[in-house]
Amino acid sequence: MRGDNMLGWAKDLFPICRSLAGPGVRETLTYLNKLLPEMTLHEVATGEQVFDWVVPQEWSVDEAYIEDEDGVRIVDFKDHNLHLVSYSEPVYEWMDLDTLDQHLYSLPDRPDAIPYVTAYYERLWGFCLSHKQRQSLKPGRYRAVVKSALYDGALSYGELLLKGREEKEILLSTYICHPSMANNELSGPVLTAALAQWIDETLSDRKYTYRIVFVPETIGAIAYLSRNLDQMKQRVVAGFVLTCVGDERCYSMIPSRTGGTRADQVLSSVLASRDDVITYSFLDRGSDERQYCSPGVDLPVAVFCRSKFGEYPEYHSSLDNFDLVTSTGLGQSFDVMADCITALEQNVYYRAITPCEPQLGRRGLYSNRGIGDIPQAALKMRHILAYADGTHDVLSLAEITGIGPDEVRDILRQLEVAGLVCAE
Amino acid sequence: MRGDNMLGWAKDLFPICRSLAGPGVRETLTYLNKLLPEMTLHEVATGEQVFDWVVPQEWSVDEAYIEDEDGVRIVDFKDHNLHLVSYSEPVYEWMDLDTLDQHLYSLPDRPDAIPYVTAYYERLWGFCLSHKQRQSLKPGRYRAVVKSALYDGALSYGELLLKGREEKEILLSTYICHPSMANNELSGPVLTAALAQWIDETLSDRKYTYRIVFVPETIGAIAYLSRNLDQMKQRVVAGFVLTCVGDERCYSMIPSRTGGTRADQVLSSVLASRDDVITYSFLDRGSDERQYCSPGVDLPVAVFCRSKFGEYPEYHSSLDNFDLVTSTGLGQSFDVMADCITALEQNVYYRAITPCEPQLGRRGLYSNRGIGDIPQAALKMRHILAYADGTHDVLSLAEITGIGPDEVRDILRQLEVAGLVCAE
Amino acid sequence: MRGDNMLGWAKDLFPICRSLAGPGVRETLTYLNKLLPEMTLHEVATGEQVFDWVVPQEWSVDEAYIEDEDGVRIVDFKDHNLHLVSYSEPVYEWMDLDTLDQHLYSLPDRPDAIPYVTAYYERLWGFCLSHKQRQSLKPGRYRAVVKSALYDGALSYGELLLKGREEKEILLSTYICHPSMANNELSGPVLTAALAQWIDETLSDRKYTYRIVFVPETIGAIAYLSRNLDQMKQRVVAGFVLTCVGDERCYSMIPSRTGGTRADQVLSSVLASRDDVITYSFLDRGSDERQYCSPGVDLPVAVFCRSKFGEYPEYHSSLDNFDLVTSTGLGQSFDVMADCITALEQNVYYRAITPCEPQLGRRGLYSNRGIGDIPQAALKMRHILAYADGTHDVLSLAEITGIGPDEVRDILRQLEVAGLVCAE
Repeated sequence: MRGDNMLGWAKDLFPICRSLAGPGVRETLTYLNKLLPEMTLHEVATGEQVFDWVVPQEWSVDEAYIEDEDGVRIVDFKDHNLHLVSYSEPVYEWMDLDTLDQHLYSLPDRPDAIPYVTAYYERLWGFCLSHKQRQSLKPGRYRAVVKSALYDGALSYGELLLKGREEKEILLSTYICHPSMANNELSGPVLTAALAQWIDETLSDRKYTYRIVFVPETIGAIAYLSRNLDQMKQRVVAGFVLTCVGDERCYSMIPSRTGGTRADQVLSSVLASRDDVITYSFLDRGSDERQYCSPGVDLPVAVFCRSKFGEYPEYHSSLDNFDLVTSTGLGQSFDVMADCITALEQNVYYRAITPCEPQLGRRGLYSNRGIGDIPQAALKMRHILAYADGTHDVLSLAEITGIGPDEVRDILRQLEVAGLVCAE
Repeated sequence: MRGDNMLGWAKDLFPICRSLAGPGVRETLTYLNKLLPEMTLHEVATGEQVFDWVVPQEWSVDEAYIEDEDGVRIVDFKDHNLHLVSYSEPVYEWMDLDTLDQHLYSLPDRPDAIPYVTAYYERLWGFCLSHKQRQSLKPGRYRAVVKSALYDGALSYGELLLKGREEKEILLSTYICHPSMANNELSGPVLTAALAQWIDETLSDRKYTYRIVFVPETIGAIAYLSRNLDQMKQRVVAGFVLTCVGDERCYSMIPSRTGGTRADQVLSSVLASRDDVITYSFLDRGSDERQYCSPGVDLPVAVFCRSKFGEYPEYHSSLDNFDLVTSTGLGQSFDVMADCITALEQNVYYRAITPCEPQLGRRGLYSNRGIGDIPQAALKMRHILAYADGTHDVLSLAEITGIGPDEVRDILRQLEVAGLVCAE
Repeated sequence: MRGDNMLGWAKDLFPICRSLAGPGVRETLTYLNKLLPEMTLHEVATGEQVFDWVVPQEWSVDEAYIEDEDGVRIVDFKDHNLHLVSYSEPVYEWMDLDTLDQHLYSLPDRPDAIPYVTAYYERLWGFCLSHKQRQSLKPGRYRAVVKSALYDGALSYGELLLKGREEKEILLSTYICHPSMANNELSGPVLTAALAQWIDETLSDRKYTYRIVFVPETIGAIAYLSRNLDQMKQRVVAGFVLTCVGDERCYSMIPSRTGGTRADQVLSSVLASRDDVITYSFLDRGSDERQYCSPGVDLPVAVFCRSKFGEYPEYHSSLDNFDLVTSTGLGQSFDVMADCITALEQNVYYRAITPCEPQLGRRGLYSNRGIGDIPQAALKMRHILAYADGTHDVLSLAEITGIGPDEVRDILRQLEVAGLVCAE
C-alpha cells in the first residue's frame, strides 16, 4: 500500500525533465509540496556565491531533436528526456554524420540503453542515444535542433521542518535534479516524502525535530549548507542521505567520514537484521554525503541505498526505470528508514534515579517467595538498573546485558513508570 | 593455624539464627567485637529511609516446630534454624497435610538438604525440610507452631576503621545475615575478622586506612552507603566484597561494573598465580557489589570468592556446612587477600628524580670493570629507571621490563635508598 | 660517491684515540668542524654537575706498552689504541706474568680480536690483546708502561644548528668517544656530517631547523641536555640517534620509550620499504636514547642502526674495522636518513579551506564531458579533499585513500596552487 503510493508518485514525476535549476526542478517541488503542504520552497539566485561555488543559470528546453534529410526525427527529446545532454546550449544546424557524431553519446557495453549525460558547467550541446541506433545511422546530412535557453534565474529547493519536543534534529536529505530515471533518482524523493508524511502523522509525539530537504545534488546541498550550517552543526544528531532506494536487490550503507556517529550506529544496527547488506567505505561515496561529511561541515550523516549508485547495470541510463524500481523495493526501504527513525526516537539514554539498587519488592516488581534462584525477570531488571548510568541507550543496554532490545524497552518502561529510571 | 582460628570462630557463630535485623545479627556482631575490640556497632532504626529502601522490623524466634497428632515434633527449629523460613510470622494452628504442604519448602534435586528460604518483605510463614522427609509425611493433622515476633527496632552493623598514614582507604565488606550456613556466609565474616586482626597487628606502618564493614546483605550495605557514600567516594581506592571464601575448590572473582579499577587489577594479578581461577562477569554479581558498583555509587569494588554463590551444589542449604568449609580453604583465602593488601600497600607509583639516567657507578650500583656486556643487575636497574615516570607501579614495571615483581621491588628499594626514585 | 666520502672521513678519523674527554675528542671535533664550518665547539668543565653526573677529568696518553725482559714491546698502544684500557692511570713497573695477567683483557670466544675496555669512572690500568697472544705469553718478567695523564679540563662537544623556516627542530645525535672502531663509532659521526652537509646545501628551503650534536656518549648527552633541555622540549618534533650505521647487513630501529612519536612513525615507514629490518624494543636500547627518552626528558627520539650495537660479532673489538664498514653500507644508511628527513619536511598536515567540496570544474581540475564514471583524477582529488581536515599528513592521506604518497603529494600541490588546501 505504502509502496504503491510511492511508486505512483514516482511514475507521476518520471516524465519531468529535471536538471540543476529551472522549470523541471520547480515542477517537481510543486508536486511534492502537494504531498507535504508544510514544505517551504526556497530559491538561490543565479550568480550567488555558496561557499566555493557559484549558483548556475537555469536551463529550459522547448524542443530538441535530430532530423534526417527526409525530415524524420530520428532522435527526439519528446520521446525520452535522456536523449538531450543536460544543460545543452541551443543549436539549429545541418551537418554531416561525422560532425554530428562528435555530439553523440552512447554506451557500447549497454547497446540498448540511452545514457544520462550532463554538461552543467560547460557550454556544449549533445544527444544521447542507444548504441544500436547510433551504429545504424547512415552517412548523410542531419539537422541538430536544440531549442534550449540558459538564463539567470534561481536554484530551487524544498525544506520541511517537522518540529518535535526537542530542538535536536534528524536530517533526511535527497535530491531532485535528475531527469527520467527511476532509482536514481525518483526513489529518493518519494521515499523521503512518504517518511515525512509518516513522521508528521504517526510520530506526532516525536522527540526530535525532522529537517527534510529536497535539493539539486551537490550544488543544492552546498547552497543549503551555506545557509544553514551553523544551526545544523548545533542541532543535527543524525542524518541520512536517501538515494537509489527503489530496487529489491540488496541493502547498502555508506558510513559517515569518521564513522561511529549515531546515524552510522542506528543504520548499521537496523540493517543487521536484513539479508544482502553491503557496507561501503566512505571512499565509495558520491552523493550529498560528500558535502555533509566534508571537513568543516562534519555532520553525522550516513547514506542509505539499495543498489548503490554506480554499482548496478542500469545506472545512469534509460534502463533505470520501473522494471528496476518496484512497490516492494520502495516499501522495504521505507521500513528500514522507519526502523532507524523509531530506534532514534526510542534510543534515549537511561539513568537510575536512586543510588544503590532500588527496592523492587515493595513495588511489586520482585517476588521471591519460595525457593531457588532470583526470578529471571527481577534479575534482568537489576541488570538494566546496574547499567543505567546515563551512557547507555536501549541498544547498548541490550548488548551489555544480553537481553533483547524489545525486552529491554519493556523493562525500562516498567522502571520508568515506577520512577526508578529516567531518560535523558 | 590462622585457618584453624577462622574455622573455630565460624563454628562458634554457626548456631546463631541470623537474619536481616534482630538478636541474631546483634549476637554475631558482639562475638566479632570481641575479636576486634576497636569495631563500633551501629543501628539504623526500623522505618528509616535509606536511599530507596526502608529499614525493616526486627525478627526474633522463640520456638518453631511442626508436630503430628502424636505430639511428635517432626520438624523443629531447635534442630536446625534453616527449618524455619526467615521472617516467618507467628502461627499456632492445626491443619491437614494439604494445607501444611503449602507452607513447606524442599529441594527435589537435593533430597537430603534443608533449603534456605527467606520472606523478608512479605508476611507469611513456612518450614523448610529435606525432600525425603517431606515425601515421607503421611496424611493427617499437623500443628504448625511459630512463636516469632516482628517488631520495630533497628538494623545493626559493625564498622572498623584502621587508620593508616593516608586518608585513602581500602574497603573490606562482608555480610552477617544468614543463619546456619558455613560458606555462605560464615566464611566471609571470619576471613574479614582475621584480615582485620592481621592489618591491625602486622601492617602497623600501613599506608592506607582500612574501612571494614560487617553488614546485613543488601539492606545493610544500602544503609551503610546512605550514611557514608560521600566520604567513601572521596577515599576508597579499592574495595573487596568477601563472600563464600571457605571451600577448597576454586578461586573466583567478579570484577567491578566498569572493570579496570585498582581492586580489579590487584585481585586479578594475585589470582594469576593460583590454579583453578574463574573470572565471572559483573552480570554474575549477587552480593553487595550490586550496591557498591551501582550507578551513582561506583566505588572501585571487586568480589572475591572461592566457589561463587549460586554456583556450588551445597549453596543455600543445610549442605553448606563444615564438610565444605575447611581450615585449609579459609587459610588459602586469607593468603589471597593478604597478597592483595600487600600489593596495594606496596604498589606505589615510582618517579625517577633526576632527568636522564643517574650515575649508578659513583653510588656503587654499577661496575663494569672488565669486558663484555653491561652487567644484568645494572641493566635491570636502568630498565626500572627508564620507566619510573610516575605512571607505573611495581606490577606494571614488572610487566614492561620482564623482571619479576619481587626483583622489581628490590631494585626500587635500592634506588630509593640511593635517592634516585621516589614513590608517589 | 657520497658513500666514498663518508668512508674517507671515517678512515681519516680512525687512528685518533678518542675517549670521554681529552685531546682525542677535540681532534675529532676539529676534523668535523672543517667539514661543517658552522658547527660550534663547546666545553663543559671537569667537575661541573650535569644533572646527576659530574663531568670527568680529561685523559691523555703519551705512550703505553708492555715490554718483556728482552726489551721487546709485545703490546704497544702505538699499534692499536684498543690495546690500552680507556682512562688507564699511569704505571711504570716490572712484574711477573701472574701479576700482569690481572691487568690483561682478551676475548676467549674471539681469539684474534683485541677487545675494547674502558674504566672511565674507576682508577686502574690495563691492556687489551688478542686471546691468542695472551695465551702465548711465557712466564717471566714484564714491564707495564702507561704514560697517561688524568687532569682537570673539559668535556668537548660539537653543535650545529641549521636554521629552517620554522623554529621546530629535527634532532640528529651521534657520539665521538670511541677509539679505533669503524662501525661503533665512526659510521655515526660521518653519516651525521654527510647529512648535515646535505641539509645545508640541498635542503636550503627547509621547513625545520636541524639540531645536530656530536657528543661523548652518555655523559656528553647528559651534559648537552642539562644545558638545552627546556628549549629542546619546546622545539624538537623528531630526533634520531645515529650509531652503527656503516655495515651492509640489516636495518635496525629502536623506537622511543613511548613509541608512536613522529620519529618512530617516519623511521618505521621509511624502513618498511627496505629488506632485513629488525625492530627492537626500547628495552634493547643502549646509546643516547637512554637519555633522550628518559622520564622527565621524553623527547621524540628513535635510534637508527644497521647491525645494532651489541648484536654483531665484531662489536667492541678490533674486528670492528673497514672489512665491516663499507662505502655501500654508509651510502644506504644515508639514503634511509635522507628519506626520513624528506618525509618529515614534506609531511605537513593539510586542511581544506572551504566547507563542502570546492568546485573543481571552474578551476580546470575536473572535466566530465562525455559519459561514464567520474574521472579517476577528480575522484582522487575529492578523496584527498575529503580527508584534508588538518589531522592527516601525506602518509596518512595515502594510507586512508589508497593513493600512493607521491601522487598524494602531486594532488596536494595542485590543490595548494588552486588555493583549496593549506598546509599546517
